Amino acid sequence: MELTTLEEVLAEAAKLVEPTEPEKRRVSELAARLLSACRQEFLEREGVVDVSIEGSVAKDTWVRGREEVDIFVHFTPSAGKKMLESTILSVGPRVIERLGGRHWLRYASHPYVEGAVEDIRVNIVGCFKTEPGRWISAVDRTHHHTEFVRSRITPQLRRDIRLFKGFLLGCGLYGAEIRVEGFSGYLSELLVISHGGFVDLLKSTAKWQIPAFVDLTGRVRREDASKLFPNAPLIFPDPVDPSRNVAAAVSRTRLAELILASKLFLREPSIGYFMPEAAKPSEGEAETSSSHELLGIIFRAGEKPPDILWGEIKHTMKGVSRRLLKEGFQVYRSAAAQSGGEVLLLYELSSLSLPSLGLRVGPPVWLDNAVDFVRKTLSREDRAAGPWVDGERLYALFRRRHVKADELLREWVRKGQVAISRELVDRLINAEILTSHSGLIERIRQNEGFSAFLKNFLEGIATPVRHLVKRC
Amino acid sequence: MELTTLEEVLAEAAKLVEPTEPEKRRVSELAARLLSACRQEFLEREGVVDVSIEGSVAKDTWVRGREEVDIFVHFTPSAGKKMLESTILSVGPRVIERLGGRHWLRYASHPYVEGAVEDIRVNIVGCFKTEPGRWISAVDRTHHHTEFVRSRITPQLRRDIRLFKGFLLGCGLYGAEIRVEGFSGYLSELLVISHGGFVDLLKSTAKWQIPAFVDLTGRVRREDASKLFPNAPLIFPDPVDPSRNVAAAVSRTRLAELILASKLFLREPSIGYFMPEAAKPSEGEAETSSSHELLGIIFRAGEKPPDILWGEIKHTMKGVSRRLLKEGFQVYRSAAAQSGGEVLLLYELSSLSLPSLGLRVGPPVWLDNAVDFVRKTLSREDRAAGPWVDGERLYALFRRRHVKADELLREWVRKGQVAISRELVDRLINAEILTSHSGLIERIRQNEGFSAFLKNFLEGIATPVRHLVKRC
Repeated sequence: MELTTLEEVLAEAAKLVEPTEPEKRRVSELAARLLSACRQEFLEREGVVDVSIEGSVAKDTWVRGREEVDIFVHFTPSAGKKMLESTILSVGPRVIERLGGRHWLRYASHPYVEGAVEDIRVNIVGCFKTEPGRWISAVDRTHHHTEFVRSRITPQLRRDIRLFKGFLLGCGLYGAEIRVEGFSGYLSELLVISHGGFVDLLKSTAKWQIPAFVDLTGRVRREDASKLFPNAPLIFPDPVDPSRNVAAAVSRTRLAELILASKLFLREPSIGYFMPEAAKPSEGEAETSSSHELLGIIFRAGEKPPDILWGEIKHTMKGVSRRLLKEGFQVYRSAAAQSGGEVLLLYELSSLSLPSLGLRVGPPVWLDNAVDFVRKTLSREDRAAGPWVDGERLYALFRRRHVKADELLREWVRKGQVAISRELVDRLINAEILTSHSGLIERIRQNEGFSAFLKNFLEGIATPVRHLVKRC
Repeated sequence: MELTTLEEVLAEAAKLVEPTEPEKRRVSELAARLLSACRQEFLEREGVVDVSIEGSVAKDTWVRGREEVDIFVHFTPSAGKKMLESTILSVGPRVIERLGGRHWLRYASHPYVEGAVEDIRVNIVGCFKTEPGRWISAVDRTHHHTEFVRSRITPQLRRDIRLFKGFLLGCGLYGAEIRVEGFSGYLSELLVISHGGFVDLLKSTAKWQIPAFVDLTGRVRREDASKLFPNAPLIFPDPVDPSRNVAAAVSRTRLAELILASKLFLREPSIGYFMPEAAKPSEGEAETSSSHELLGIIFRAGEKPPDILWGEIKHTMKGVSRRLLKEGFQVYRSAAAQSGGEVLLLYELSSLSLPSLGLRVGPPVWLDNAVDFVRKTLSREDRAAGPWVDGERLYALFRRRHVKADELLREWVRKGQVAISRELVDRLINAEILTSHSGLIERIRQNEGFSAFLKNFLEGIATPVRHLVKRC
């Protein structure tokens, strides 16, 4: 069945993103029981002044199948970070156990307890109850965010928020974590609220240029915001705290993908934009045509919070990319994956080998160092030709000692000649550095997660448009 | 013997460039005889009003070994170009024969007679005697140039002009013909006169930036000259006709080479800068390391005046270069040679093959054609990966059908997809297109001139600094 009209697609999409009444009831009941148990256990502890439900359950804005109950335990500022931490870590697990769930620890800006009760994810988070603007921890704003959204939401906006979150999920754009660099739940809600609905929001995003600016407070001028957040591709001042950019985590690429997805969706609406599974690779082996010139780095991930690890991964990925470029390689694209305790950094180059002769670009003849360039070039052992003059500049050709990307990378890492995350230096030194000519593909297939990632990488299609590909 | 001081080098150089007294006498006597014979033969013809000696012999500024007698036959403007031409072509050869010499025809802007008497080159040129500014033919200014230089010259300037011309000859910078794109005799003389001597001129040129400006009239402002000659790397208003740039033939590269040579010479004076033979390749076979990736085009030159042919050669050379760049090749350098009736265009590339996958750079997502790029990419048969988004732009990888420079070039020429000189299209279609992997080197060695040229090309050292190379 072809879905053609926007209304039909939205009706179909609503079924995907809207929890059923029994599903909603089940989540509400669990949230109530969890709140009640937390109140009993926490309110008698020193420094605790309140316990509340926050997040998408509190706002009734979660996407079907992605329910997650956030309980916030509010401490008085005088309690201090140490008391907050020890109370959360000692009491939190007990509550989850009481309800028959499993639990584990997570670290964001400070520790919190994560668990699962009746197969629903639950988080028990400690925060300080402060006046707006006098924030102590990073999650102290959350309760105010919940209140703000609740004060503005309507049943129609609720449906549209779920549609937008479903759209973002289907397009691979949902999530503020560093691995994704996409749109947080709160930002999604504010975007829909500020535009009055899903379709009006998409009509707007389809016309955005980067940097984009949206203000819900009516009090922030674009020029001032641009000065405050000079490199942000998207600026959305937090209505709860206008000095903060709610969209700080959104990368240029993710924002551009939203703009593109909006244009495409409005021109030809399709349920595909709401289906993350449509973006998954098709069954079967990845095409591994030898024409792709791939360089891969595989190392053990180590035990780290995802945002820490992915910060290091992205920093390292860019550092290696820049070094390859500087040496003369053309880097077509790069991507990283984490699976089964291993990290894979993958680069596609125009060629895994550099030409054996390289061009050295010298100064214009009128600079003082022009004479030095002539003398040095003539005395260098690696001189292949030159110095010659073309236009106003000097040039020379030199003979490269190493031309293979994997050998060069191994040397740069060993000698500290590439900007990689300090925490990953040892792992990089001991990493497997492989190319598509040297068994990279075979090695990747040993890790199921990498295998699926490789397949997507080789197709190389932006997530929002992946469902447009005709499958054979 | 090491020459160290500037004075010693200049004294040595003066011996190279200054004709001996017997040499001067021999040239003067021949010039007098030629003038006398021309007066007898020409002055009785209709339209002829005067006969004079011009050029470096008239000014006593020729470089030893490069004597050349220019006889100018002046016609009244009313004579017309046809009469001038027929008179020169019928009478000129007779005069040369009378003196026992050989002769042949040359074409510049109009025909003239070239010959050799007693092994000295002679030219018999027709011009119109006009008021300054009312020029009819391109050589009508010449007599005024001669007069201007004579009016400003001194014995010391004469020596310095010869030194400067010798310096330009040694550095491969002398000659306004299109093949060289260097400094004419008249420009050389004006440069020395305007700076008061050779060393002061070099002190000045060593500090030049491009564009450079020299005015001897004191009446031309730099801003006005820049507007009149917007792309000229060197502007020198003709004292005889300030609306003309005496340095119009000088290319950016030749000017930059003069700047570089001046700096190097002043820092470390050497007789090498005055010795063209020092710039010649050393004996023996050219180094033909396979690491040089060479693309060569060889075709028959045809019978054409050198400036016409070289205009076509240079235009074609640039057109092919641009096309190679556009396709994705990196062109390190290019050069052309003419020898034994054949022309060779030679290119050094980073690689003679392109990667089998190429990057297609699409528009930023916010442009209307972003959607087209996505759709077209997904439907293209040559799609290897993409479309993906990076930053604000779309990208894709495509599979190349042809990757070899010689095969691509053959196709472009055949299909008219490369900007080459119209007069050379047929020659290019039938040209030999060879690479260093396909017998280019062997083919080049069949032509002695090309063989020497290849050797210089592979060394790739700018002529002014070639004598600095330590020979083994």
